Amino acid sequence: MQYPEPIAKLIDSYTKLPGIGSKTATRLAFFTLDMDEKDVESFAKALVSAKKDLHFCSICGNITESDPCVICVDKSRDQSQVIVVEQPKDVMALEKMREYHGLYHVLHGVLSPIEGKGPEDINITGLIKRLQQNDQIKEVILATNATPEGEATATYIARLLKPAGVKVTRLAHGLSVGSDIEYADEMTLFKAIEGRTEL
Amino acid sequence: MQYPEPIAKLIDSYTKLPGIGSKTATRLAFFTLDMDEKDVESFAKALVSAKKDLHFCSICGNITESDPCVICVDKSRDQSQVIVVEQPKDVMALEKMREYHGLYHVLHGVLSPIEGKGPEDINITGLIKRLQQNDQIKEVILATNATPEGEATATYIARLLKPAGVKVTRLAHGLSVGSDIEYADEMTLFKAIEGRTEL
Repeated sequence: MQYPEPIAKLIDSYTKLPGIGSKTATRLAFFTLDMDEKDVESFAKALVSAKKDLHFCSICGNITESDPCVICVDKSRDQSQVIVVEQPKDVMALEKMREYHGLYHVLHGVLSPIEGKGPEDINITGLIKRLQQNDQIKEVILATNATPEGEATATYIARLLKPAGVKVTRLAHGLSVGSDIEYADEMTLFKAIEGRTEL
Repeated sequence: MQYPEPIAKLIDSYTKLPGIGSKTATRLAFFTLDMDEKDVESFAKALVSAKKDLHFCSICGNITESDPCVICVDKSRDQSQVIVVEQPKDVMALEKMREYHGLYHVLHGVLSPIEGKGPEDINITGLIKRLQQNDQIKEVILATNATPEGEATATYIARLLKPAGVKVTRLAHGLSVGSDIEYADEMTLFKAIEGRTEL
């Protein structure tokens, strides 16, 4: 005997999510059966709405309901700084900090020869265009991840932008706040020593 | 800045699932944005359909699209045996074995004084009724989980049914197939010795 079709289909859908195997998917599907009908319906609506109502901002590439996004249209923000990130969630992480008031640019990926991703596959041309059309931007802060691909992408963009005379910076690498030296990996320690500051 | 509303709502829905915290929910929500629109739509439909199209079988209490369920209407199955389980997923687990061809009865829970669950909160009256209306049933096999609550529920049902003259049995407890004695817990070893069989 197989699961009744409606639950088999739901298990199948849950299995497509990352990090969810068939056992967890089954558990989630049976949990769904016990949920409030209202909650299930709003879950279904949220799925469709997230897919349909969200677009990429035509200026910065961040996800947004309205185009341009709320950050790009906010003239009270510092128009001279642009932080370049890999993903929309990086924007959210930086916004949570509440200390940065400039603009963003979302690449939607990194250069990755292994995955066959070149400069034309990520939103680099959009960044170049922004710089050409907007002379208010004085500094581009590269905030790609501290992975080999993130580093390579940052280096590539830095080389591309430097001739245009714009200031290009990179986020500092070093020990996380609250971390123990004992447990830090070698690369992090090396970056922390390399980037040491005078007191 | 907050997440755009559609994604915030989706994160909120994912967070309601068991074992999914806000970080995982955020990851799943962003993953959803990258999914095929078709997959997302069928996910949404599966959610609503699982909730709307599935009912409990009026005979055995298992989840089913049609009432009575396919197992209850299947006259080729052994009508003399009924396995009593806690949850619909236990039926699926036993069916996967392909060795049992009798009927089932789903309790939808166990007796649990701590959670305030008494005999009237689980599907025991349904089982009594089935036995009263159907004299084909000769054996009731109690397959509640090997937890204190499962054991208590099994004992309770056994006491209730024995006077009616029906044979009441309990699944064997002992070492899992393929397990090491070294790693077995004390209770399992005790049950394995207690239930030892002659060769």
